[in-house]
Amino acid sequence: MSQPRTLGDEPVAPAVTVVEVGPRDGFQGERRFIPTARKIELIEALIDTGLPVVEVTAFVSPKAVPQLADAAEVVAGIRNRDRAELLALVPNLEGAERAIAAGVDSIGLVVSASESHNAKNLNRTVDRSLAGFADVVAAARAAGVDVKGGIATSFGCPFEGDVPAARVVHIARRYAELGVTRIGLADTTGMAQPRHVRAVVRAVRAALPAAELGLHLHDTRGIGLANAVIGLEEGVRRLDASVAGLGGCPFAPGATGNVCTEDLIFLLDGLDLATGVDLDRLIGVARRVEELVGRALPGQVMKAGTRAARHPLEAVPTAAG
Amino acid sequence: MSQPRTLGDEPVAPAVTVVEVGPRDGFQGERRFIPTARKIELIEALIDTGLPVVEVTAFVSPKAVPQLADAAEVVAGIRNRDRAELLALVPNLEGAERAIAAGVDSIGLVVSASESHNAKNLNRTVDRSLAGFADVVAAARAAGVDVKGGIATSFGCPFEGDVPAARVVHIARRYAELGVTRIGLADTTGMAQPRHVRAVVRAVRAALPAAELGLHLHDTRGIGLANAVIGLEEGVRRLDASVAGLGGCPFAPGATGNVCTEDLIFLLDGLDLATGVDLDRLIGVARRVEELVGRALPGQVMKAGTRAARHPLEAVPTAAG
Repeated sequence: MSQPRTLGDEPVAPAVTVVEVGPRDGFQGERRFIPTARKIELIEALIDTGLPVVEVTAFVSPKAVPQLADAAEVVAGIRNRDRAELLALVPNLEGAERAIAAGVDSIGLVVSASESHNAKNLNRTVDRSLAGFADVVAAARAAGVDVKGGIATSFGCPFEGDVPAARVVHIARRYAELGVTRIGLADTTGMAQPRHVRAVVRAVRAALPAAELGLHLHDTRGIGLANAVIGLEEGVRRLDASVAGLGGCPFAPGATGNVCTEDLIFLLDGLDLATGVDLDRLIGVARRVEELVGRALPGQVMKAGTRAARHPLEAVPTAAG
Repeated sequence: MSQPRTLGDEPVAPAVTVVEVGPRDGFQGERRFIPTARKIELIEALIDTGLPVVEVTAFVSPKAVPQLADAAEVVAGIRNRDRAELLALVPNLEGAERAIAAGVDSIGLVVSASESHNAKNLNRTVDRSLAGFADVVAAARAAGVDVKGGIATSFGCPFEGDVPAARVVHIARRYAELGVTRIGLADTTGMAQPRHVRAVVRAVRAALPAAELGLHLHDTRGIGLANAVIGLEEGVRRLDASVAGLGGCPFAPGATGNVCTEDLIFLLDGLDLATGVDLDRLIGVARRVEELVGRALPGQVMKAGTRAARHPLEAVPTAAG
């Protein structure tokens, strides 16, 4: 958000920070265990595309999410780690301590704007979640590890429906009181429409003008990247996305989860917003992710290629349109 | 474009005209012949959702597109036809005469902004295409049938790459000289990025301020609806879309074709732009289209339901995010 825009033809610094969340938000939903070495390879390949931040894993209960039981080994194994910020999701102090010991650069906290989602997801009240964050932040501070505050169901809750913007603002303020001012507004189940993105971003910004706001958008209802445009118009300059569109929605079989990183990069390029990411290289990585999980994933640019893809005249389209 | 915006809570008239193109642009790519009665049922169901314009078929060579060989029977069979504008694509005078005889309300012409795409798609030069349109327009005028002018590859050509905006303006002017001022800019193979949408819409509007511009966007690279936001910001108020996201891209196996109608309606609703379409009803139709073609289609809202969909607390998400 506070980073400079592209000046002339020479990108001085990324205008938008794209946070790759596939290794965490994507993999956590995969039933078949992905070998640790494959995870590390993927993360290294993602870093090699120029992605500035990668959410590499979560330090959660291995019983709850067996796929991420190798969190510490994954972090320890990343060889090109100096070229990106390694972020890990943590639910509590124990997770934070494990993440810090493993050597992450930053940790992400999460609490839901809706009580019922927080109860379901984290098994406690919102207030209890927030109260527990003080020790986490202190531990991170002491270790020189950055903290990001995520707010799930910021734009709607699959159990409760509408979530008042004031509720999101309340949680953002609590984060700010703890000194956490990088705040991620998450559309956890893809309920956001442009009006919600606008209203919530504006409300949080009005309450906390100095906060650095990010958006974690899902494409569950097909408008994730349209919502990204609205967020960018509202000044957001940090966007989460998942390589190949890896991830899903627990409530909607067949529906898409996170917005797709390659498609987002293609969009940002078309808005003249530099990201520092090599799109061709990222497409190659996305195709390998499809092989890794053994099924087609929703990313589109990886199927069609970039705009630069040329077709021989022999490839005959069926008819006009 | 010239229609009034929603005033207060009461939609006075649709702010955006959504043109349903599935029965033409979607079906033309289906290999298995869809029985005429099924096509008619679908079109009637689409009209019943409140869609104001339906592109019902194309009057093209049955040899080139066997799927649409029943064009006249389809048009003749639609019983609720008074409630929507029935549009048909025609490539030439012969097609126009068949369409007019069948009783359509409007015909759509198409020519490509790129020579190589026009040669491949229509087997003639752009100039020969345009020259042939005078007789078509005269025949339509005489019959009281409206004419729309489509410009394929307006934002890029799969053979040539970039297409100069001046080239699109040139063709739009030629249409205007024939009295055709409802002009559709088509992203035929999904090459448009926001910068192209902005540049081409602005260039055509500057040249022809009175023209009513529409956009025919494809989601081949995942940013079709993000491009729609840009088009709407540029004042476009007519958008093509295909129910369930029916349709594909001949150049990219597995890639998406037209933007999906339900997802577009969900987006427009979120932008407070009224369409007059009953989204719940349209979702029902989209699900039947999947059954009709016998495979999963890319539409997302039809999988996840609208924002109003509530889930029981028992449906447990896997983890935070």
